[in-house]
Amino acid sequence: MVNDLFLRACKRLPVDRTPVWIMRQAGRYLPEYRAVREKADFITMCHTPELAAMVTTQPVEIIDVDAAIIFSDILVIPEAMGMKFEMLENRGPVFHRPLRNGNDADALRIIDPEKDLKFVLDAVSLTKKTLRGRVPLIGFSGSPWTLLTYMVEGKGSKNFSHIKKFIYNNPSLAHKVLGKLADATADYLSAKIEAGVDAVQIFDTWGGILTQNDFEEFSLYYITKVISQIKRTDEPVIVFSKGVHYKLEALANSGADVIGLDWTMELGEVKKIIGNQVALQGNMDPTMLYAGKNKIREEVKRILVSFGEGNGHIFNLGHGILPDVDPENAKALVQFVKEESKIVHGKVDKKY
Amino acid sequence: MVNDLFLRACKRLPVDRTPVWIMRQAGRYLPEYRAVREKADFITMCHTPELAAMVTTQPVEIIDVDAAIIFSDILVIPEAMGMKFEMLENRGPVFHRPLRNGNDADALRIIDPEKDLKFVLDAVSLTKKTLRGRVPLIGFSGSPWTLLTYMVEGKGSKNFSHIKKFIYNNPSLAHKVLGKLADATADYLSAKIEAGVDAVQIFDTWGGILTQNDFEEFSLYYITKVISQIKRTDEPVIVFSKGVHYKLEALANSGADVIGLDWTMELGEVKKIIGNQVALQGNMDPTMLYAGKNKIREEVKRILVSFGEGNGHIFNLGHGILPDVDPENAKALVQFVKEESKIVHGKVDKKY
Repeated sequence: MVNDLFLRACKRLPVDRTPVWIMRQAGRYLPEYRAVREKADFITMCHTPELAAMVTTQPVEIIDVDAAIIFSDILVIPEAMGMKFEMLENRGPVFHRPLRNGNDADALRIIDPEKDLKFVLDAVSLTKKTLRGRVPLIGFSGSPWTLLTYMVEGKGSKNFSHIKKFIYNNPSLAHKVLGKLADATADYLSAKIEAGVDAVQIFDTWGGILTQNDFEEFSLYYITKVISQIKRTDEPVIVFSKGVHYKLEALANSGADVIGLDWTMELGEVKKIIGNQVALQGNMDPTMLYAGKNKIREEVKRILVSFGEGNGHIFNLGHGILPDVDPENAKALVQFVKEESKIVHGKVDKKY
Repeated sequence: MVNDLFLRACKRLPVDRTPVWIMRQAGRYLPEYRAVREKADFITMCHTPELAAMVTTQPVEIIDVDAAIIFSDILVIPEAMGMKFEMLENRGPVFHRPLRNGNDADALRIIDPEKDLKFVLDAVSLTKKTLRGRVPLIGFSGSPWTLLTYMVEGKGSKNFSHIKKFIYNNPSLAHKVLGKLADATADYLSAKIEAGVDAVQIFDTWGGILTQNDFEEFSLYYITKVISQIKRTDEPVIVFSKGVHYKLEALANSGADVIGLDWTMELGEVKKIIGNQVALQGNMDPTMLYAGKNKIREEVKRILVSFGEGNGHIFNLGHGILPDVDPENAKALVQFVKEESKIVHGKVDKKY
């Protein structure tokens, strides 16, 4: 690996600067991505290894990030289990037949990633060839809870009425489906590692809509189960539970190597709570990329200082990059992290 | 006051059971509210004291809550300042001409609540007469930050791109408008107290979209300013900053008597952080009212136990009641809080 800063930081090994990548970095803010997207719809792109590999490597070449993340969607798992979805522009994914009862749950197929999700594994192999070891490649999945939320809601939601009705009125059915999803997710991430990804990230986008007890019961338990079942040698696991400001110690004990944090957290405060047992990833407000370059640089510095001394920081946004961000600002962000963190790490080197 | 439990709890005085009211309790889940709403649109209801007073007292009579909250909308302030809005069914408020620049800001009028918001003050006087001292009446406003967010976004938002661009690229203009809004809000709440409300609540619905530093700079500073400027004798001030899981000590030092908490917090943990200097309001997940009655009772107990011993708890949801909740479940919630908290407070009385 030419640049292994990301992997070193995941393992809390010393680095001479902080590695940086951007959630949803292969996305609509890049004109080069939009050019591919004009020829194929979102789901076709996910299903076509050549197109997925192409957009996966774009940000490495254009934005100069320290890791690639395979272009795909977390909903390929429910899709492979038999739930078709559509991706509507500006509205997100829509399942026309959401999961609502025991019959719907029984209809879910048990998947074999090598067969049912071969297109993702092929995209991984192809991307690894294209990357030629320049930077590590990250694979990802949704958390079982986040997948279930999408499957039950069927589309974007403000109040999450359907999924809450589901878990409050039929918790045993919820647990049954979550168990199936955990197994499928672990198999899927294991197959991705087998196909060549160097690390995996579990996106728990909807963890933060739950009470603390319900988060432990319906989300964290299954994240922990997935991590324990992943077949891996030393590939790090990142968990990003958006909006989960509580149970941080429990998250750090989930078996994850890295915890991703949204922008409402302070890295320094989180370090105080959970110590140095895991690395931290994050956490600039994605809308900060609407600001001028000076403001972006200031915010980069503030976050680096908040993390402070010691190893184990991967710079990222606190959520996915927004589609109307100027790519020049994304480039500037990456550049600023590289420049400013060298100063911070330089100081640390001198001190110790 | 026949039932002053709510006011006593706000002041952390002993009570023989926990008082309870429900955010958005005068709302669409009640058939009696919908009957009024069929004859007049939302904004007409806000502008017509007789209709506002009628729906304000409904939950006192139907749900048996321990406080009434005047039916109105936080956007009456920007409306009085010259920004007309529409309330669209299932979509929320829409400003057709959002505030985006210095000219828009200069066009905002300085308001005189006695004249420009007389309809609210008349609704307060009329409601006080209808209530005949049965329970206290709460007045409310948005926080300056939350008002600015609506005014700049112009409608519901997922990523809050417009307001973030506004504060990141033109912070001095943002501060200028926030200062105006703080003055208008303080005058408005003072006039409501003069007209007869027994307590006021400041809704900081969008505080939680900010980084911790930005929350202090753009929201908390102006909440503190409003509280310091309210003319009151002993009417308590409640602040509800949704999603603000950080800076709780700073919030408790804002001058507020009560801090409202959403359902992702644990009352007991918050008490540990901020001590007994303020009362706490909350915090059941609003979607819990979709559950069966046994589950609701269990959750009521869990929250009462989490708050634990001592004075200063007002039971409420962690956000507004949802329009499709069964009114029988809202009634059951109120009943359960009354029953279960008597047991908790009875134990405390015996112990001390």
